[in-house]
Parts: sequence; C-alpha cells; structure tokens
Amino acid sequence: MEKLTRKEGRQSTERAALEEFLDGQWWGVLAMGGVERRDGRTRPLAVPTLFVRHEDRILMHGSTGAGAMGANAVATSAAFCVTAMDALVVAHSTFDSSVHYRSAVLYGDLQPARSEERAMLLDRFSDLLLPGRTGEVRGMTPKEIAATNVVAMPITDGDWVYKVNDSPVKEPDEDTDVWAGTVPFVVNYGTPHRASWSSAELPDSVRTLVASGRPSSVRSAPV
Amino acid sequence: MEKLTRKEGRQSTERAALEEFLDGQWWGVLAMGGVERRDGRTRPLAVPTLFVRHEDRILMHGSTGAGAMGANAVATSAAFCVTAMDALVVAHSTFDSSVHYRSAVLYGDLQPARSEERAMLLDRFSDLLLPGRTGEVRGMTPKEIAATNVVAMPITDGDWVYKVNDSPVKEPDEDTDVWAGTVPFVVNYGTPHRASWSSAELPDSVRTLVASGRPSSVRSAPV
Repeated sequence: MEKLTRKEGRQSTERAALEEFLDGQWWGVLAMGGVERRDGRTRPLAVPTLFVRHEDRILMHGSTGAGAMGANAVATSAAFCVTAMDALVVAHSTFDSSVHYRSAVLYGDLQPARSEERAMLLDRFSDLLLPGRTGEVRGMTPKEIAATNVVAMPITDGDWVYKVNDSPVKEPDEDTDVWAGTVPFVVNYGTPHRASWSSAELPDSVRTLVASGRPSSVRSAPV
Repeated sequence: MEKLTRKEGRQSTERAALEEFLDGQWWGVLAMGGVERRDGRTRPLAVPTLFVRHEDRILMHGSTGAGAMGANAVATSAAFCVTAMDALVVAHSTFDSSVHYRSAVLYGDLQPARSEERAMLLDRFSDLLLPGRTGEVRGMTPKEIAATNVVAMPITDGDWVYKVNDSPVKEPDEDTDVWAGTVPFVVNYGTPHRASWSSAELPDSVRTLVASGRPSSVRSAPV
C-alpha cells in the first residue's frame, strides 16, 4: 500500500475492502500523462469509462478504431480513479463542511488483453454490468469482437489507494446553535423506457436490476 | 474547440452548453501527469474533488498543508473531468449497449488563487455548493482562510471538450425479439440526518436543497 501524506485515518489498507468497493461501482476516470495532441502539445488525458473488476484486473473497453482504449493504446503509466459520493456533510462552519465519499485510485500500466481472451472478457464485462443479459441476447459476432478492444490494468498491492470518509460531523469547540448533519445522496433506477421499435416485455435482467434498488446494489456497498 | 477524432455527433461546441453542464455538477476528477512519488517514480495523478464554476474559472480547494491542492501545487498542465451518468442503454446486443452520459474535460494550467481573493472565492464556493448556507453560519476565520488553498483552472475556448450521448437505442438491422430500451439513473437526496450534538431545526439551506429533488438541480440539468 502506498502511504498517504495526510489523513491516514481515511485510508483502508485491506484489499478486500478495495475489491468490495470496486465491485459496487461501474465507471471511473482513466488518467494518463504525457499524451501528445494534434497540436503537438503534451497534456494529461482524462477519460470517463465503464469498467468491471475481473479477478486481479480492472477491465475497460473501447473501439479498436481510435482513442484512449484503441488499438494503439499503450500507456506506460496510468491512474484509474473510481469515486462514490455518499453524503453532503453540513457542519457548523463552512470550513468543516465536506462530503462523505469512497474513492480508489489505482496505478499501473495499461495492457491490451490478449486477442484469445477478448471474447471471454467482453462477456464478463457485460455480465457484471447487467447480470443475466448475455443469456437474453445473441452472442457477440467475430466482427464485433474484432472491433472492440479490451484494456486491462492490473490491481497490484502497493499501487493503489482506497480512501473512505464517513466521519461523524465534527463537534464544534465553540458555541453555536446552527444545524449540522449529513444529507445522503441516493442513486436509484428510474422507470425503464422501452425503445420505440421494440415490443418485447421487460426482461428478467432489467427487472432484477431495477428491483435491486440502486445501480451498484448488485455489486453492493451501503451508503 | 478541440476536435475529436471520432463520434463528432456527440460533441457540443457551445460554451453555454458547457457552462450549464458544469453548473449542474459539483465534483470531478483532476488529472495531472508526471507527478513524482516518494519512491521516485513518475506517475499520473488522479484526484476526485469538489468544484464550482465561477465566471471563467473552475475553482477547487484543499488544505494548504499538502497534496494536489496544497501550497506547492503548481502543475504546468492538468485535465479536469466532470461526468454525469444519465442512463443505462440496453440494446438488442451487448455490442450496441452503452450509457447515456454527459462529460466535460477541461485542459489548462492550475493557478493558485491570489491571496487577496481567496476569502471571496471560498464563500463563492460554499454558496454554489449549498446555496444560502453562508448566511446561516459564521464567516470563515482568518486562520481558516489561511489554511485553505484555492486553485483555479481557466476555462479557455479551444481547451475543452463537452460530449453528450443521449442517442436513441440503436434500431437493429437484424431480426430480434429482445427488449431494448433505457434505464435512467436517478440521483436524489435522502433524509437529512442531524448530528448527535446538534439540536437545531433543519435550516432553510438544507430544506431548499432537499426539496429541489436532486443534488444538481440547483444548478440544474435534466436527465
């Protein structure tokens, strides 16, 4: 585990806690340094992307055509940041106000998945994002598999940080009569909206997901 | 506006659309390249952080003590990524499934705010995150202001990208009888929870925020 320079109390060093958190989330921001742009300038790149954890790797996917997850995606070094905002912390002062959150940052080299495991990993990707869906639709075609790149970042101990702030609202050491407390953020599914050209009944995969109550509850983490 | 290499249809070039989006969000991921760590290796840095837009700048804040937003925070180049996930797009195939999202990435140099504007910007920060709160609590003390760094990233045309995917679910060019549609993500406030040591009534700021129905509705953007 990489040590933080401050607020050590917020840090969890348990791999199980990291994995439980990652398994409850489904998107993050991939950051890479030193990406050259068309105008010749070098800048960091930041890309929001869906992900799943599969064993000891973070999997991301994208078109093979272009972009951060494309066929030429070889980054010597990247960071992947996954964040859940859980509550607004309203303290007696603006200074002590903050948010409850959970956030993981993983560091590592991006590695394109081997072509022979790509099909398996893409199905795994779909299965973790919407459990049961791969059993309801046709499989990916060879053309679709060829068009989709899978990029992996290994989860390496020593190269990740997982922070949780769920501290109680700070009790003031001054006289105050203002309200203080927390306001939770609650993420839920809304009512599924059927595509205009589709006439099928709501499938089990979507029904189960919506009934689960919140997007991450299949891979759940309490607020 | 920086041009994207693909999916041009997803890109909005209007500054007003960018600002409306940013004003509806309250956190993002700050990415910087080439940050040296204690072990001597150079890696990208990715930090989730609260922000507000104030005129032509993105404002972030942090302790002056250490870290990405600390007193020594001088990055020659950074990217700031703000994302809203709006809906799961469940297509007739896993290949065509995706998400509806809005996402902005801004590029620029981070600039510490001038000390003489720091107090004003910190109040602006609080006012935009929880409107009305600064009128309910005492002002920041000089010590608190001194302990809080404000870092700004200018919003410069040509140095940002704003992408929206709200396309209808792709109509298949093959026979299929599977359900297809969208499942919206809905973010709401839960019931405020008063700190154990506080006995005050729920203040107007929190009541108004919760009644607004979703975290970003004060600076609203429809799903």
